[in-house]
Amino acid sequence: MIDESLRSLAKGRPILIFDASDREGETDIVVPSQFITPEIVRFMRKNGGGLICTTVKGDFARRSGLVYLEDILRNQYGKDSEITRTDDMKYDKNSSFSLTINHRSTFTGISDRDRFLTISELAGFISRSKGLPDARKEFAKLFRAPGHVILLIARDGYFSERRGHTELSTYMVEKAGLIPSATIVEMLSDTGNSMTRAEAMEFAREHSLSFIDGKEIIDSWLNDQGNGYGSFRYNSSGAHTFPEGIEEIG
Amino acid sequence: MIDESLRSLAKGRPILIFDASDREGETDIVVPSQFITPEIVRFMRKNGGGLICTTVKGDFARRSGLVYLEDILRNQYGKDSEITRTDDMKYDKNSSFSLTINHRSTFTGISDRDRFLTISELAGFISRSKGLPDARKEFAKLFRAPGHVILLIARDGYFSERRGHTELSTYMVEKAGLIPSATIVEMLSDTGNSMTRAEAMEFAREHSLSFIDGKEIIDSWLNDQGNGYGSFRYNSSGAHTFPEGIEEIG
Repeated sequence: MIDESLRSLAKGRPILIFDASDREGETDIVVPSQFITPEIVRFMRKNGGGLICTTVKGDFARRSGLVYLEDILRNQYGKDSEITRTDDMKYDKNSSFSLTINHRSTFTGISDRDRFLTISELAGFISRSKGLPDARKEFAKLFRAPGHVILLIARDGYFSERRGHTELSTYMVEKAGLIPSATIVEMLSDTGNSMTRAEAMEFAREHSLSFIDGKEIIDSWLNDQGNGYGSFRYNSSGAHTFPEGIEEIG
Repeated sequence: MIDESLRSLAKGRPILIFDASDREGETDIVVPSQFITPEIVRFMRKNGGGLICTTVKGDFARRSGLVYLEDILRNQYGKDSEITRTDDMKYDKNSSFSLTINHRSTFTGISDRDRFLTISELAGFISRSKGLPDARKEFAKLFRAPGHVILLIARDGYFSERRGHTELSTYMVEKAGLIPSATIVEMLSDTGNSMTRAEAMEFAREHSLSFIDGKEIIDSWLNDQGNGYGSFRYNSSGAHTFPEGIEEIG
């Protein structure tokens, strides 16, 4: 199943990832950020319904001056402030929210075209940011905060630290050999709750999308670790291959 | 037209507000936060498609320790930091984003029921916060940041400072005699752009919703100012009347 999901991602086709029934119990629509289009943003808002967020890895975040919003709020309100207390979170010990951004060429920032522009420009910037002498400055030249695209930072070391959709989606996109950034959205049901795993699987069937459980991804990661991350398909140059045609979303 | 819009709001029925063609040129779905339901959250995400945000007034924000996200980011990155520079914003000189929150009883925070819970509990807290000796502490007991409901702070003095949907919607809800907090979402079109005024008016007709231009609201405010805000319908006790039945959304 994981191979099918990775092939989908490499072709720029969204996949669905269910985290775990003992965690959020939610399914996210996941697309590699480098393949975002206005049509996919529309697909995500109409069929997901949650917050459209874009993930980055910790090394990129540090290079570009991105930090966790929790840390920013603790600087603002005090290290032990009540407002940032998370000991009553139901499914994890922290969130992965970072800044919200707009590309500086967007108009209001929220239309499908504007979110597409912000997300695709971010993916491009991630890809070329390693060689930059001052990535933080360049990042701020391109993007403004606050904005309408919500950034998430995947934990270093992936699932040793956290097993949320941020880590699951970023790991999968990286494993598919792509720029390590995923754009994701929670799938909500008409019942008032998040979609159940069964509802999301039914949606996957109807739209011919690949569906995968977090457990299978984490199992694969454990295996990768044994192999010294040997299955990552980066070129030695750091470049990534872009597929020629992106399939239509069914 | 404004009277019809105010009657809709007083009954808990969403209205549509178009800001201005020389500003964002966007229409938001607007509902008084005190009347939010899981069904209305669903209606907003399906028919709006932008970010579902909840507004508060400046006095409540100061009482509860809420500040503009821009100010928090300037504290984090430096007063003249490039990332928070807004001189290239296309439609205004600043945003009204504040913290994102979840009510502490939510599960993941994003389902229609969870966002309903956060928004309705916030409206209740606003209503009783004036008498509290430490509203900031009580706020943090009830809500956690970051979360999935995006707070916006309306500028003091309303349209003398800013003429965005934050101010337009909050003013209208306050003028309708309700707890001064609106929950709003941008209406996006299938074209990849935000809905045009004509598209939003067509939607209003199809769903029998009231549609109003920002200009008419600002004209009414200018008139209110002349009257010393005489048309605000707060009870002297600070209490608000709740309608008995809320109509179905068509």
